[in-house]
Amino acid sequence: MQQLQTPLCHYLGIDVPVIAAPVSASPVFVAAVSNAGGLGVLQATWMTAAELRQSINAIRQRTERPFGVNFVLALTAEQKHATLDIALEEGVGIISTFWADPAPVIDRIHDAGAISCHTVGSSAEAKRVVDLGVDVIVAQGFEAGGHVWGEVGTLALTPAVVDAVPGAHVVSAGGIADGRGLAAALALGAGGVWVGTRFLLAEECNIHPEYRDRIIAARETDAMMSEAFDGGWPDAKHRSLVNETLERWIAAGRPASGQRPNEGEVIAFDDSGGPIPRYDLQEPLENMTGNVAAMVLYAGQGVGLTNARLPVAAIIDNMVAEASEIFVRMSAS
Amino acid sequence: MQQLQTPLCHYLGIDVPVIAAPVSASPVFVAAVSNAGGLGVLQATWMTAAELRQSINAIRQRTERPFGVNFVLALTAEQKHATLDIALEEGVGIISTFWADPAPVIDRIHDAGAISCHTVGSSAEAKRVVDLGVDVIVAQGFEAGGHVWGEVGTLALTPAVVDAVPGAHVVSAGGIADGRGLAAALALGAGGVWVGTRFLLAEECNIHPEYRDRIIAARETDAMMSEAFDGGWPDAKHRSLVNETLERWIAAGRPASGQRPNEGEVIAFDDSGGPIPRYDLQEPLENMTGNVAAMVLYAGQGVGLTNARLPVAAIIDNMVAEASEIFVRMSAS
Repeated sequence: MQQLQTPLCHYLGIDVPVIAAPVSASPVFVAAVSNAGGLGVLQATWMTAAELRQSINAIRQRTERPFGVNFVLALTAEQKHATLDIALEEGVGIISTFWADPAPVIDRIHDAGAISCHTVGSSAEAKRVVDLGVDVIVAQGFEAGGHVWGEVGTLALTPAVVDAVPGAHVVSAGGIADGRGLAAALALGAGGVWVGTRFLLAEECNIHPEYRDRIIAARETDAMMSEAFDGGWPDAKHRSLVNETLERWIAAGRPASGQRPNEGEVIAFDDSGGPIPRYDLQEPLENMTGNVAAMVLYAGQGVGLTNARLPVAAIIDNMVAEASEIFVRMSAS
Repeated sequence: MQQLQTPLCHYLGIDVPVIAAPVSASPVFVAAVSNAGGLGVLQATWMTAAELRQSINAIRQRTERPFGVNFVLALTAEQKHATLDIALEEGVGIISTFWADPAPVIDRIHDAGAISCHTVGSSAEAKRVVDLGVDVIVAQGFEAGGHVWGEVGTLALTPAVVDAVPGAHVVSAGGIADGRGLAAALALGAGGVWVGTRFLLAEECNIHPEYRDRIIAARETDAMMSEAFDGGWPDAKHRSLVNETLERWIAAGRPASGQRPNEGEVIAFDDSGGPIPRYDLQEPLENMTGNVAAMVLYAGQGVGLTNARLPVAAIIDNMVAEASEIFVRMSAS
């Protein structure tokens, strides 16, 4: 099998140019991605310092390969990015940031010897943060699931960003779910891809079975952009599957926060029995109970291509093999 | 130079898998695209029967190669698609349709021996129209300029459509402006690309120099989706550059039709002195006068990659050469 090695692979110390978006706070999932030759990224934004240290330790027990840790800067700013300092103290080599200006954290990432990776939605923003010192740019297209920063589609955004930051590492994100998307992103000039929705169906990913079933059944048109699930992260656009909560909100004329149908209602419970209100930002995990299908079901437009539950390693191997085969076939056409 | 021949090329009788979106009603432009080995498509929606016959004749004087004629079905339905019948009478071999159900016209296109090509925005719609008999599906992504039918980005839409209509010809549209976009679309499974914005800078394209200058200066984030320019085609989303008219409309809180700033004001004149009101759907052509920069400046998100004025043939040759080079390089990686 071909490896599709790109300069990004060498830079990050990985075998194949596939990064798993931080769709999970599960060390098992993150380690599985890195063990399969890609880059696993831990979602650490909602962790305490102790939880983060424990999670990093749990990843290291399962892999010796590189992994990253992600922070939503807008949500860690109040704590002055204290957990980011924990990740650096623990020697994490790749720090991924999102949703706010990375200027306040770039120097401390570099001072700790780590690589800085930031997600942007435009070529102007890419140029600005590379000038500030960011090492790896994730160009996130409009197709992406979860929180979406920009409004430009991946196919138009990727080459515009590549042209804006010559010499920088660019990763393409949004709508990429199989080897065709990987090949397309590399053709557009990216050094790798950032994949979220596809990995929700990884066997190692701990989402709730009902969420998984909705992902399997959904088409590319079922992942809708809204600001509806704003509990914990207000005024932030995100893409999620149309479910009971979105249907009611749409039927009510898409009212603003505070005036939405059944606002404040507890609809589910986490594994320690904690209540989860409607419009919260938490997606359903496997040990949650209640009306989990009414919780936010993050998904990108690649959901139309996301149908089979497989081990992480098989998802990555299939993606790389398919992309390699496309390049060989097309170079002969 | 490699030719990147695909089954779509053989089916349409063209040399390279590049179709120029119907950005122009100029026979010179359409013939130039076909003479360069791609497929030129004439925009015929706003023509009388006599104008259409004359235009088809003018194309045939300049090329013996295949070309297409495009109709916005929603706008020709009142005349019971009479000009479509004219195109068929004249022996046009490829009829492209958009914006409404193609069911009423597929049989007459086929009865005349022509190929039916229809633009869709989702995999479900692709399946439906292929079942009705459409031969070539144009999968139009959210990045596209001009009128945009769906909400799914090109990178996620193209493979979803390809999977939905196995065996049908699929063309990828939206955000494709260079060889990187062409290579990406082919990697996604398309048999060819449908390119609009890039061809606005063709030397043979007769847009106004001020419109051309705006295209050259614009970034990928400057092409905005709205329903603002609805004169002649109401309630139809379209993507165009942010200009004076859109800025005023945004500043006024994006009011509905009838309540917009300076509505009804004549801002420019066509080549016979006819008035063009603000919010009209007509883009500025080279022989128009007045405040043409306040007219609608259609552009897709590929506008960030669209910077150089070149002959049609050079645009197409560069695109194909760049895509070929990408496949050869990537197959060796």
